[in-house]
Amino acid sequence: MQRMKCIIQYDGTAFAGYQVQPDQRTVQSKLEAALTQMHKGKEVKVVASGRTDAGVHAKGQVVHFDTSLDIPLEGWKKGLKSLLPPDIGVLEVQSASESFHARYDTVGKEYRYVILNQPDPDIFKRNYAFHVREELNVEAMREACRYLEGEHDFTSFCSARTEVKGDKVRTIMKADVQRLGSELTFTFRGSGFLYNMVRILVGTLVEIGKGERDPVDIPSIIDARNRAAAGKTAPPQGLFLWEVHYPQPEM
Amino acid sequence: MQRMKCIIQYDGTAFAGYQVQPDQRTVQSKLEAALTQMHKGKEVKVVASGRTDAGVHAKGQVVHFDTSLDIPLEGWKKGLKSLLPPDIGVLEVQSASESFHARYDTVGKEYRYVILNQPDPDIFKRNYAFHVREELNVEAMREACRYLEGEHDFTSFCSARTEVKGDKVRTIMKADVQRLGSELTFTFRGSGFLYNMVRILVGTLVEIGKGERDPVDIPSIIDARNRAAAGKTAPPQGLFLWEVHYPQPEM
Repeated sequence: MQRMKCIIQYDGTAFAGYQVQPDQRTVQSKLEAALTQMHKGKEVKVVASGRTDAGVHAKGQVVHFDTSLDIPLEGWKKGLKSLLPPDIGVLEVQSASESFHARYDTVGKEYRYVILNQPDPDIFKRNYAFHVREELNVEAMREACRYLEGEHDFTSFCSARTEVKGDKVRTIMKADVQRLGSELTFTFRGSGFLYNMVRILVGTLVEIGKGERDPVDIPSIIDARNRAAAGKTAPPQGLFLWEVHYPQPEM
Repeated sequence: MQRMKCIIQYDGTAFAGYQVQPDQRTVQSKLEAALTQMHKGKEVKVVASGRTDAGVHAKGQVVHFDTSLDIPLEGWKKGLKSLLPPDIGVLEVQSASESFHARYDTVGKEYRYVILNQPDPDIFKRNYAFHVREELNVEAMREACRYLEGEHDFTSFCSARTEVKGDKVRTIMKADVQRLGSELTFTFRGSGFLYNMVRILVGTLVEIGKGERDPVDIPSIIDARNRAAAGKTAPPQGLFLWEVHYPQPEM
């Protein structure tokens, strides 16, 4: 058996999320159906770096699977492409060591979140950005980002629906926001993220951008260790799983 | 009766084109259904500057309709927005003179066409750009654009399925192509465009960009007055009706 590592992208709009659910269109079920077809009906299981919710996109999700087939890497890419729907793309297929694990070996991830900040909506962005009419103060949000960076207990920024049992201490190496025209892009690079964490971070930053909260409120929100202390959860369609990090640069 | 002018946008992906067709999802039928509902079941007809094909987008399509309702302009925008599907947007609603006609009064249009020019496809662009793997020579295509500008008989760049009976002389005021990263955007501003004209222009320019034809071939393609002399028709999803021009800047 050979373990394979794939970097994939998907447009989350028409998926009920990454993970298999009965009677739902999910990314994992499409991947497994394509691989099972390539293996002539023999069931193939796929393991991802983590799940994403309905409507959330991926620019660089990583998955692994095991195969007994001997196919050149370009053949994997072409074969999968021909069997996958048009809203899933395969960026890279690599041979991995048998111990490689897409989920357990992760050392960090980067997420980006896009806000369209202008009075009128833009139908071309409706599935790829969160529309906020009120002008947001980017400087204030950027100041708030400084307080988020570092190692903190992010319980306040974790959905109550989490399945995480252990501690909620995570490290954010980079939190930033950039404006390009009316588009704001938030970048979060961290050791790991809790359930809905990026969307709650963005929802809280938006309240700061509107002047409803102050950047210096962030430390006390963190200290509260209480979901109710943070802001609303921003909607899924602005969120992109951008990159997944592993110890070695290349397998 | 008051004549109203609207500037609308739509994502052409899920439409069978602009114009009403039996049992098809079209932009016109959605607009007329929304307006008819606002008029409590009294049928309202909508006239556009021109139709667009299945998969073609509009950033600034113009339509008109007549109404007996007395609603403030913001109310029209909100009312229509609440009744239209999320892939149609209303940018502006204006009162127009009773003689205004969205189609007959047009003095020009601007179309843009987007090509994604990189080896790998990008699933996020699949409905909004034409993917061309081979590196295109932008300078050659720009040189070819110079030959397209001006008044010409564009018979060679008109689909045989046209309904135009009269002459096919049109004026292109501007033809250009710009590269931004791996995205090429073609701009065509002209007095009017024949059926599939922009897509055939782009298809021909792509053959020039690949080196299969020469920029100086354009005059002889025009002179041939024969569809077979030009290149392939580029696919619909890269095409955007960008703006429609009328004699007065504002109604």
